[in-house]
Amino acid sequence: MKAAVYRSHSKDPRQVVRIEDIDVPKIKSHEVLIKVDAAAYNYNDLWGIWGEPIKIPLPHISGSDVAGTVIEVGDDVSKIRVGDRIVSHPNLTCRVCYQCTSGREYDCSDRLVWGFQTGPLWGGFAQYTHLPEVNVVKLPDSVSFNDAAAISMVGMTAWHMLVTRAGIRPGQTVLIMGGGSGMGIAGIQIAKLFNCDVIATAGNKEKMDKCIKLGADYVVNHREDGWHRKVREITNKLGVDVIFEHIGKTVFPQEVGLLKMGGTLVSTGATTGYDSTIDLRYLFFRGINLLGATQGTKAGLEEVISWVSKGKIKSVIDTVLPFSNMVEGHVKMADSQLFGKVLTTPQRL
Amino acid sequence: MKAAVYRSHSKDPRQVVRIEDIDVPKIKSHEVLIKVDAAAYNYNDLWGIWGEPIKIPLPHISGSDVAGTVIEVGDDVSKIRVGDRIVSHPNLTCRVCYQCTSGREYDCSDRLVWGFQTGPLWGGFAQYTHLPEVNVVKLPDSVSFNDAAAISMVGMTAWHMLVTRAGIRPGQTVLIMGGGSGMGIAGIQIAKLFNCDVIATAGNKEKMDKCIKLGADYVVNHREDGWHRKVREITNKLGVDVIFEHIGKTVFPQEVGLLKMGGTLVSTGATTGYDSTIDLRYLFFRGINLLGATQGTKAGLEEVISWVSKGKIKSVIDTVLPFSNMVEGHVKMADSQLFGKVLTTPQRL
Amino acid sequence: MKAAVYRSHSKDPRQVVRIEDIDVPKIKSHEVLIKVDAAAYNYNDLWGIWGEPIKIPLPHISGSDVAGTVIEVGDDVSKIRVGDRIVSHPNLTCRVCYQCTSGREYDCSDRLVWGFQTGPLWGGFAQYTHLPEVNVVKLPDSVSFNDAAAISMVGMTAWHMLVTRAGIRPGQTVLIMGGGSGMGIAGIQIAKLFNCDVIATAGNKEKMDKCIKLGADYVVNHREDGWHRKVREITNKLGVDVIFEHIGKTVFPQEVGLLKMGGTLVSTGATTGYDSTIDLRYLFFRGINLLGATQGTKAGLEEVISWVSKGKIKSVIDTVLPFSNMVEGHVKMADSQLFGKVLTTPQRL
Amino acid sequence: MKAAVYRSHSKDPRQVVRIEDIDVPKIKSHEVLIKVDAAAYNYNDLWGIWGEPIKIPLPHISGSDVAGTVIEVGDDVSKIRVGDRIVSHPNLTCRVCYQCTSGREYDCSDRLVWGFQTGPLWGGFAQYTHLPEVNVVKLPDSVSFNDAAAISMVGMTAWHMLVTRAGIRPGQTVLIMGGGSGMGIAGIQIAKLFNCDVIATAGNKEKMDKCIKLGADYVVNHREDGWHRKVREITNKLGVDVIFEHIGKTVFPQEVGLLKMGGTLVSTGATTGYDSTIDLRYLFFRGINLLGATQGTKAGLEEVISWVSKGKIKSVIDTVLPFSNMVEGHVKMADSQLFGKVLTTPQRL
Ligand SMILES: [Zn+2]
Ligand SMILES: [Zn+2]
Ligand SMILES: [Zn+2]
Ligand SMILES: [Zn+2]
Repeated sequence: MKAAVYRSHSKDPRQVVRIEDIDVPKIKSHEVLIKVDAAAYNYNDLWGIWGEPIKIPLPHISGSDVAGTVIEVGDDVSKIRVGDRIVSHPNLTCRVCYQCTSGREYDCSDRLVWGFQTGPLWGGFAQYTHLPEVNVVKLPDSVSFNDAAAISMVGMTAWHMLVTRAGIRPGQTVLIMGGGSGMGIAGIQIAKLFNCDVIATAGNKEKMDKCIKLGADYVVNHREDGWHRKVREITNKLGVDVIFEHIGKTVFPQEVGLLKMGGTLVSTGATTGYDSTIDLRYLFFRGINLLGATQGTKAGLEEVISWVSKGKIKSVIDTVLPFSNMVEGHVKMADSQLFGKVLTTPQRL
Repeated sequence: MKAAVYRSHSKDPRQVVRIEDIDVPKIKSHEVLIKVDAAAYNYNDLWGIWGEPIKIPLPHISGSDVAGTVIEVGDDVSKIRVGDRIVSHPNLTCRVCYQCTSGREYDCSDRLVWGFQTGPLWGGFAQYTHLPEVNVVKLPDSVSFNDAAAISMVGMTAWHMLVTRAGIRPGQTVLIMGGGSGMGIAGIQIAKLFNCDVIATAGNKEKMDKCIKLGADYVVNHREDGWHRKVREITNKLGVDVIFEHIGKTVFPQEVGLLKMGGTLVSTGATTGYDSTIDLRYLFFRGINLLGATQGTKAGLEEVISWVSKGKIKSVIDTVLPFSNMVEGHVKMADSQLFGKVLTTPQRL
Repeated sequence: MKAAVYRSHSKDPRQVVRIEDIDVPKIKSHEVLIKVDAAAYNYNDLWGIWGEPIKIPLPHISGSDVAGTVIEVGDDVSKIRVGDRIVSHPNLTCRVCYQCTSGREYDCSDRLVWGFQTGPLWGGFAQYTHLPEVNVVKLPDSVSFNDAAAISMVGMTAWHMLVTRAGIRPGQTVLIMGGGSGMGIAGIQIAKLFNCDVIATAGNKEKMDKCIKLGADYVVNHREDGWHRKVREITNKLGVDVIFEHIGKTVFPQEVGLLKMGGTLVSTGATTGYDSTIDLRYLFFRGINLLGATQGTKAGLEEVISWVSKGKIKSVIDTVLPFSNMVEGHVKMADSQLFGKVLTTPQRL
Repeated sequence: MKAAVYRSHSKDPRQVVRIEDIDVPKIKSHEVLIKVDAAAYNYNDLWGIWGEPIKIPLPHISGSDVAGTVIEVGDDVSKIRVGDRIVSHPNLTCRVCYQCTSGREYDCSDRLVWGFQTGPLWGGFAQYTHLPEVNVVKLPDSVSFNDAAAISMVGMTAWHMLVTRAGIRPGQTVLIMGGGSGMGIAGIQIAKLFNCDVIATAGNKEKMDKCIKLGADYVVNHREDGWHRKVREITNKLGVDVIFEHIGKTVFPQEVGLLKMGGTLVSTGATTGYDSTIDLRYLFFRGINLLGATQGTKAGLEEVISWVSKGKIKSVIDTVLPFSNMVEGHVKMADSQLFGKVLTTPQRL
């Protein structure tokens, strides 16, 4: 089969990622073999290619988001059948520890992001791949492979942040930072699904317009000074109930000051840097909640897919690349002009 | 190996249960093979032998509670090693559905009680048995096989009822019905571990005394008329916060009347019958909660075993039978004079 | 001022309810005086006039739902000003006990329904009335007095049942019994606000059609045999997540059998009778939750009013009566052909 | 009556605080008049005398913690009677807003700390004072005035932090920073009441010993370099479940690194400074919770007093000063050698 493999690291994906012919993987008794129709890109893929900030197994196949058809099932697989259309759940955990058996797979100390931390040669940018049965979700006929691959990682993560962690409720004011990113696109739609008032931020006029089209009630340019004062004005100086944060140090201290008494910030990343400051007075005097999140649950992904099938969450796709040119997707990920996900189609070279 | 097998049903266990020589079971890749040192009896075992109220696979080995040593592990077992001392978690579920992956294995529609609904020839009354890795919990050295087997099913179920479902908190008044049963013994101790005030009920003076020794603050004879009025008096007419119920129709209507406003009854059985009455005015006017529970979670069982190792929950063992005479254990289960669990030791004939 | 007073009980409201001239009430320091523009009818009013099932103070003014303008405030009133447009919150509690100070005013042992259990001469069917500041909610300009009076009691109660008690979440299947009643009209809309799938029941074709117009996804005639089998079919035999119940013994046993594993029934009344049966096996084997509810919280009423102002919850008004003819409203309440609330206007005779 | 009054600010309490004769206060209809037997000191008192970091009303009576006897009740007081022994609840809020009526009085935007932010001349260091009925808790006979005054503020705050906010559960590992302070003394005992494993920190050998006597399982000197490594060793490198924090910037960054995956830090102050740093990677990668808290609820204070009456929480009193010398209490508060609370007795000059 064809797969996108790299055997060494580079800052330039074009230098190391090659379409190679390798063996179709063999499955274990609780795994399924998947013919991959669509695979989506994430920032994790770049970290793998760069070899930082953490080390990963080499040779490597990246790709944490795939949709396709099951063509073989192991002897101990119980619910998935050959022919089932599925999407990947990228959170690989032990499934037997205290956290995993109490619904907190995200807190499992064995947690690995599939396609990023797994290998050698185990990821989604390939014509065939394999996953444990618990790491695939069946797709209703109404959900296309492209839409499923595009929403899987970001949808699961955003659902976990807003629903499981922050516990959003109808009527709350939710600030979605980076509303034009894959994460933000999912966040805006989930918050609207819960009938929240959504303030999104984006970095330019075009993205700001698209946030409004996705359902955001207000949008602010986070590249402009005083962006947080604009947010505060929108709330009539009351502050916001929930902040969806993945930007990091350049905005974190201002965000903390934007929360209402008892409000909640939930963070899943720090693209501008992690060494932030914090004014502890906001924390204790206003009784706020600063919550962290990484990945999410299979149950959450099932909910997201269900809402995609009902048309209440829509995948936004920027580009679909033929597999022979898939390395361009990595290059595009560094490009902040994207609005939506980049995909490749392993069956279409 | 030796195992206690029955190939047909009877109301008299002595007529059908035989110690036979059968093959040691083979394990799947995610299972472990266990040399069984101690196995405990439950009412489920009698239902299996009787063949009612539900049908079970034949030929059958009963037994839902074992402790022993792992002597072989499948290729996909990740945390358990050969030589580990373990206790069984009897709740077999699919581990992949929405409920299982959100911490609610007890709500899995594939739920089976191991040793009761499983088979043919798959249960705990045998010298060797096998279980999925997720269905065993490691034992600290300080927990004996007998103590572990004696607490597993009742401890897991009582923990689920009081902690997960009823959410007991320090200072609440908890009524433990049938405090002298295996369930009640676990319930009293868990409620005291949470610093609740415990009122237990029992059917005779001897059992009442033992409830007090286990930590109950008050005890009432539930065989006497007006038992519920005595409970109310103990609470200075305030009623109780939580009721631990597994008796059924003979007490259910009175229990509902004993709850404080906002109080909670949690039920896991109905030994005196299930076709009860209910005065709905108590339900809505007092805003009470009537909650059901069956089995529990592996995470809950881990907590119970941890407290056994700290000496805060003690197993109570009525009798330990040699395996050659194990059928007497089934006979004893019908005997309401028991105080604590009956065990057998498959390695000691 | 004019008020609708009765000084003795009768099964026929026309025999005892009279428009009388009485003194405008005096307020305490934490109370406000309200010029009543609109007052809505509830079943409680009939119970008061009948003098059963509980005794109430005489002479009596009924009425638990009013909207109007504040014309005087006591010295210790802090947030309400003369001229504020407000709606009543009918749950009178002590505001100082453990339950009241932990957000559970509905579990206060001093709880009284204003206009039903209060008096003499303290209720809403009057040109002026008074309430503690904590028992009024400010109205946005966009909410009319009629709409506010029509939604207050049923909206607060339905919100409490579905949101606070049952904890509905987007995507759940919610069965709204009696969807054409005041309670059901509120329940359907709240469940849809949370993006639930709603199955409503009603007693005739006209009401069934109106349930669909209100947003119900499915509707079943609960007067027909096998109504519960139709509900089950709609769910593809899966059962429902949440049941909104206020009918009582004629449907309760069937409802219990309709719940999914882990599902929740929340009950607030029993118009067909309270002495029901229950099969305890459904309770424990399926791990369901049977929850009671009476009244609700001021915080919940604030949320309801906020959604009315946004147009997401709409009051449904059957009839508006001039005050001189207000006794006809009591007569209408016995009439199950109503769809929506009956109101009277004390300022318009 | 005698009261400790200051009419201007000073860094030296002896320069401004005087015992003066002033009028006994008059009560409003929902208030009670209290003859103060015991009053305890808090850091807030010093901030008031200094006039920073926030401005307070002058002339001022400090004191946020009193116990005594009710000698008069207003007309609208419903549960408290003349002669009742009571302790103050220092969290003054509006009692009518959304937060107050949903159990979150600590998030009320009108929240004031009684004796600190109130006045002129309204605080606890006086022979008589007044409070709303909702701001006093009845004392069982078994609780002395001194013990009640000593536990009120710190007990309520620590309960709120650990129970309401962090949601501690039996078996968790809880790190109590500053275990020898008033806050820490309450924190250790509450965590032990919940059967947690407690690691306390203190600044010298004597206080460390006292922490162990109070029930801490382990103690670490937080004045020594590498204190956090010692904590981690105690946990076998696993980290802690919950951190009770009120120290601030000198320890906050290390604390964040000590939490287990999914662990919780709850903060209520920053005596060493509030401008801290934070490594956001710990926040999102480990999915931790950083929660703030200020004050607490009356319901929480009731629970604390109940546990004091059962002997499960003990007040620790360092010094009791005659009222004529009460200014020495302010001086002592700056003295970190205290172990326990300082009290004065307004009725004993
Ligand atoms: Zn795990
Ligand atoms: Zn399952
Ligand atoms: Zn109350
Ligand atoms: Zn407030």
